[in-house]
Amino acid sequence: MLGAPVWSSVRQGLSRGLSRNMGGWASGEGRKVDITGIYPPVTTPFTATAEVDYGKLEENLHKLSTFPFRGFVVQGSNGEFPFLTSSERLEVVSRVRQAMSKDKLLLAGSGCESTQATVEMTLSMAQVGADAAMVVTPCYYRGRMNSAALIHHYTKVADLSPIPVVLYSVPANTGLDLPVDAVVTLSQHPNIVGIKDSGGDVTRIGLIVHKTRRQDFQVLAGSAGFLLPSYAMGAVGGICALANVLGAQVCQLERLCRTGQWEDAQKLQHRLIEPNTAVTRRFGIPGLKKTMDWFGYYGGPCRAPLQELSPAEEEALRTDFTSNGWL
Amino acid sequence: MLGAPVWSSVRQGLSRGLSRNMGGWASGEGRKVDITGIYPPVTTPFTATAEVDYGKLEENLHKLSTFPFRGFVVQGSNGEFPFLTSSERLEVVSRVRQAMSKDKLLLAGSGCESTQATVEMTLSMAQVGADAAMVVTPCYYRGRMNSAALIHHYTKVADLSPIPVVLYSVPANTGLDLPVDAVVTLSQHPNIVGIKDSGGDVTRIGLIVHKTRRQDFQVLAGSAGFLLPSYAMGAVGGICALANVLGAQVCQLERLCRTGQWEDAQKLQHRLIEPNTAVTRRFGIPGLKKTMDWFGYYGGPCRAPLQELSPAEEEALRTDFTSNGWL
Amino acid sequence: MLGAPVWSSVRQGLSRGLSRNMGGWASGEGRKVDITGIYPPVTTPFTATAEVDYGKLEENLHKLSTFPFRGFVVQGSNGEFPFLTSSERLEVVSRVRQAMSKDKLLLAGSGCESTQATVEMTLSMAQVGADAAMVVTPCYYRGRMNSAALIHHYTKVADLSPIPVVLYSVPANTGLDLPVDAVVTLSQHPNIVGIKDSGGDVTRIGLIVHKTRRQDFQVLAGSAGFLLPSYAMGAVGGICALANVLGAQVCQLERLCRTGQWEDAQKLQHRLIEPNTAVTRRFGIPGLKKTMDWFGYYGGPCRAPLQELSPAEEEALRTDFTSNGWL
Amino acid sequence: MLGAPVWSSVRQGLSRGLSRNMGGWASGEGRKVDITGIYPPVTTPFTATAEVDYGKLEENLHKLSTFPFRGFVVQGSNGEFPFLTSSERLEVVSRVRQAMSKDKLLLAGSGCESTQATVEMTLSMAQVGADAAMVVTPCYYRGRMNSAALIHHYTKVADLSPIPVVLYSVPANTGLDLPVDAVVTLSQHPNIVGIKDSGGDVTRIGLIVHKTRRQDFQVLAGSAGFLLPSYAMGAVGGICALANVLGAQVCQLERLCRTGQWEDAQKLQHRLIEPNTAVTRRFGIPGLKKTMDWFGYYGGPCRAPLQELSPAEEEALRTDFTSNGWL
Repeated sequence: MLGAPVWSSVRQGLSRGLSRNMGGWASGEGRKVDITGIYPPVTTPFTATAEVDYGKLEENLHKLSTFPFRGFVVQGSNGEFPFLTSSERLEVVSRVRQAMSKDKLLLAGSGCESTQATVEMTLSMAQVGADAAMVVTPCYYRGRMNSAALIHHYTKVADLSPIPVVLYSVPANTGLDLPVDAVVTLSQHPNIVGIKDSGGDVTRIGLIVHKTRRQDFQVLAGSAGFLLPSYAMGAVGGICALANVLGAQVCQLERLCRTGQWEDAQKLQHRLIEPNTAVTRRFGIPGLKKTMDWFGYYGGPCRAPLQELSPAEEEALRTDFTSNGWL
Repeated sequence: MLGAPVWSSVRQGLSRGLSRNMGGWASGEGRKVDITGIYPPVTTPFTATAEVDYGKLEENLHKLSTFPFRGFVVQGSNGEFPFLTSSERLEVVSRVRQAMSKDKLLLAGSGCESTQATVEMTLSMAQVGADAAMVVTPCYYRGRMNSAALIHHYTKVADLSPIPVVLYSVPANTGLDLPVDAVVTLSQHPNIVGIKDSGGDVTRIGLIVHKTRRQDFQVLAGSAGFLLPSYAMGAVGGICALANVLGAQVCQLERLCRTGQWEDAQKLQHRLIEPNTAVTRRFGIPGLKKTMDWFGYYGGPCRAPLQELSPAEEEALRTDFTSNGWL
Repeated sequence: MLGAPVWSSVRQGLSRGLSRNMGGWASGEGRKVDITGIYPPVTTPFTATAEVDYGKLEENLHKLSTFPFRGFVVQGSNGEFPFLTSSERLEVVSRVRQAMSKDKLLLAGSGCESTQATVEMTLSMAQVGADAAMVVTPCYYRGRMNSAALIHHYTKVADLSPIPVVLYSVPANTGLDLPVDAVVTLSQHPNIVGIKDSGGDVTRIGLIVHKTRRQDFQVLAGSAGFLLPSYAMGAVGGICALANVLGAQVCQLERLCRTGQWEDAQKLQHRLIEPNTAVTRRFGIPGLKKTMDWFGYYGGPCRAPLQELSPAEEEALRTDFTSNGWL
Repeated sequence: MLGAPVWSSVRQGLSRGLSRNMGGWASGEGRKVDITGIYPPVTTPFTATAEVDYGKLEENLHKLSTFPFRGFVVQGSNGEFPFLTSSERLEVVSRVRQAMSKDKLLLAGSGCESTQATVEMTLSMAQVGADAAMVVTPCYYRGRMNSAALIHHYTKVADLSPIPVVLYSVPANTGLDLPVDAVVTLSQHPNIVGIKDSGGDVTRIGLIVHKTRRQDFQVLAGSAGFLLPSYAMGAVGGICALANVLGAQVCQLERLCRTGQWEDAQKLQHRLIEPNTAVTRRFGIPGLKKTMDWFGYYGGPCRAPLQELSPAEEEALRTDFTSNGWL
């Protein structure tokens, strides 16, 4: 429960959120905000005593700002959002908003387990500067999270959110795939603009693109490991952990895909698969942060219970980058 | 972050927590608190506008107090704890403490995703009257929640907790089984007294009992569906959702198991399997709360995104009780 | 297709199969054959050149015959039946029949993927001396093996089989649990006498016992790892790989369960869990055969593609026996 | 055991198999046979009494021969091979060989559970006219089918096979993914020419292409549902159940991919996803055969235990085709 000020500012945040980013989409006439492009889901830096290190966060953003990203995602799974307090979550959004260029999009992960908490977090994040809310599927009661429950949840959030909503399906973390029929229904909501799909099933991505083709609905690949085939299937961008360390390469892959240079794209995509797996499924955020340290960013420690890599894991992580020519 | 007053009261809570329940275990001499017996994991009642209804909570506790339970669990999975704010979580513990008999145990679910938040919640719950903390496995980053990470997490919590800690493994919700080797290591911690295992694999339960036989380590079955075979394998109690509606029967089953009346126990156990599955895996908390309404308790609505049962589901739920002679 | 002689002998086999084993069950009056008790699922010994070694098979049977088993199972999963030709499968049944005592039961695994092949194999096995057919669920098309398909399959087999049929559900190998509703329907077939359930979910075992209580339907635990809790839930026996090496102990556990000595049973059960897991889930048939070599039986090699244990695996296997006092 | 004649003809079959198809690959100089292109995995037609209907098989082949397929696959999963006897398996290969054009490739599924049986079946299939053997992973003992076991299995088969070997990974049926490291090792075998990968994970497909780029190793998509993204990742063809009913469309999709017309390819791919899922994962072979009846082929019944579709399933199947404009 974040208190009265949040609610009183809804109207204000609403107008702000809808008026900023016009890209290729004219929002006033019922078209949805354009979210195409590449986003790194930024990590949350911590000090040695596990405090959020906002200075390091800003330094990382500065370095990342040299790449042609469409914007930044905060508090995706890589942001360790389940380990942050509500006020830390908002402070991170606020700091990133201030540190980043005005013409880039800030997508903020506002998902909580309850619908009510998600609505409140979304409102608050809009208030502190998020351009869109990325809302992960609630998952603790996954046995009851059928299409009806999820449609209800997202509809409520999108109805009340002053900023556009991006669905977020990440089965590796939630044990739950947002069902295609629910996505199709939700794509018709005027305030739901797209989905980040991290499951890696590009047939599913193609089907979502196909079945939402009459809506302004945008699909973003949730990982650099299947960015090319996702583009081939109709995705329009990606939110890629790997972009935190190989930002230029992921942006180049996007450009090759967008401009139809599929052969070069394939070669580049191939070399990104193992590094991508290493900083996601295989070694998780500890692996991503360790790699950031190697590539000139601040990675630093994770909050517990996430542990540092073992020496053997670190060695394997390094090999996944060296064997593909990135280190 | 729950603030300074919590920390300042740690020592006070510590002495209180360790001094109250002596049962058959003498705490001062290194023996652990006795948690044997049956506990209903109480639900959190909500009003029609989704506020916690503390009055109904107390009414339910009153009715449940007629059964020979060892105590009550609050904020197990059935308590919808992921939908409660921190202050609601504490208030529920406080109210239940006041409403229940002093000679019964109050086990409070204090698990959060981060170690730090879990420690703080545990301290606060101790302060408001919990006798022991039941700590669910963190799960969002389950790909990295190996034995090392989980041992680190629980050790930290147990080191700092003023009250005994009960491990809690519930793979249906978390997608994660606390590994047996981690349980065995943790069983040696002086402030970890047992585990609630809801996975339903009684071979695993037997193995845990066997490998912790030299510690005062107590295994509680996490569901009434396998209470008898868990006793047969060496468990000493159960935390059973079904006890919220068939409290007498679950206590009777416990008594039959404890006194070696296995034939009668078997007959009773058989008749509890389908009702138990109905209020847990099959229909979840909405099913449990609907059944509570039938049995004279206050069930009421769940918080969103959990939805009410459909009429067809409600009919199937009813059949699972009538066909076994309970309605 | 096994040819005409098989079919011409159906009637003969039928009468023989029904008339031999009367145990506590009077078959003529509609009661089903009594299959209660313990069975080792015997392995198929191979020579160094991967031929079936019938001499070693007989030697093993001889040694096993000193234990109070109810009978023997051939061509359960431990018999490497998918690696045997049709004629080898029949020859194994025939040799075992001749080598074993007449008053013991011979259960032969006759399952094939198609209904037709299963029927033919069942007929042939009856002809060469099987007392009952143990029929594994077909599984290659598991996506279509719903209750209707499985009920059709087993009904056809049981209709045409001259010997009683035992259902066999082993999800670790087949990726498929025979649904409880299918088991309940099939329990009403006069020629289906029971089920071997290897899944390890004793709640399910209890439910099957409960829902078939009006039929003469017998549930056998599929593994020694959950033999005690299965008995506690109403099972009447077990088909246990571990009985190939710890025959006396498994029979003793059965006796303790049957006579209600649950405390002693529990202690013994506990010490069997790790050795049981080692020769089943953990190290498979190569582990079982290696252990047989240690315990004075002939284990020998498996047929390819099953490989020998690595030295590290063999060491871990040994530890699972020594740490529980069996080696 | 298929008998002596098979073995005596090995040399003969060997020379024949290696000399026929030269495509773009010069076999004598160490290059592998070219298997690029599209293949329908043909179904096995049965009469009303469940006999193989070789006449209908030939009729279907005749109709399919009008499309620019690279060849035909027999006894893939859609061929109901686990339901055929050894002699039926060989007769089907023989009949198809005779019915089809000499310049098309015949890939025959020769996989069995044991290595020995697979070798023998491969030899026999080569003898009756198969150009290459498609070998599914053994799977009944999947718990022990690690990379070492699978490398051993395929190496043995490839060493002894007179015709090239295509690996076949189909986790929906086998519960087993052939590990990437095993594929990479096996790609170096001179008689292993490629893999049919039906798992649908195109990141994996890309990684296999990448890590085998120094071998002549060809990856075929195992389903039309991800044909386009597989091409985008470097696959060179597909073995697609859907090609049995939408042969022209699948070939057109292949042509669009091969010639870089990705936009048109995407539109066509989108419209094939639901029909493809319907005839594979959703309704299995009964769905495929029912659709064949609609499209002018002979589908007919499956062998038991596979059952006909229910009326509701048939209706849903039809919708998956009509809603995409194919019926």
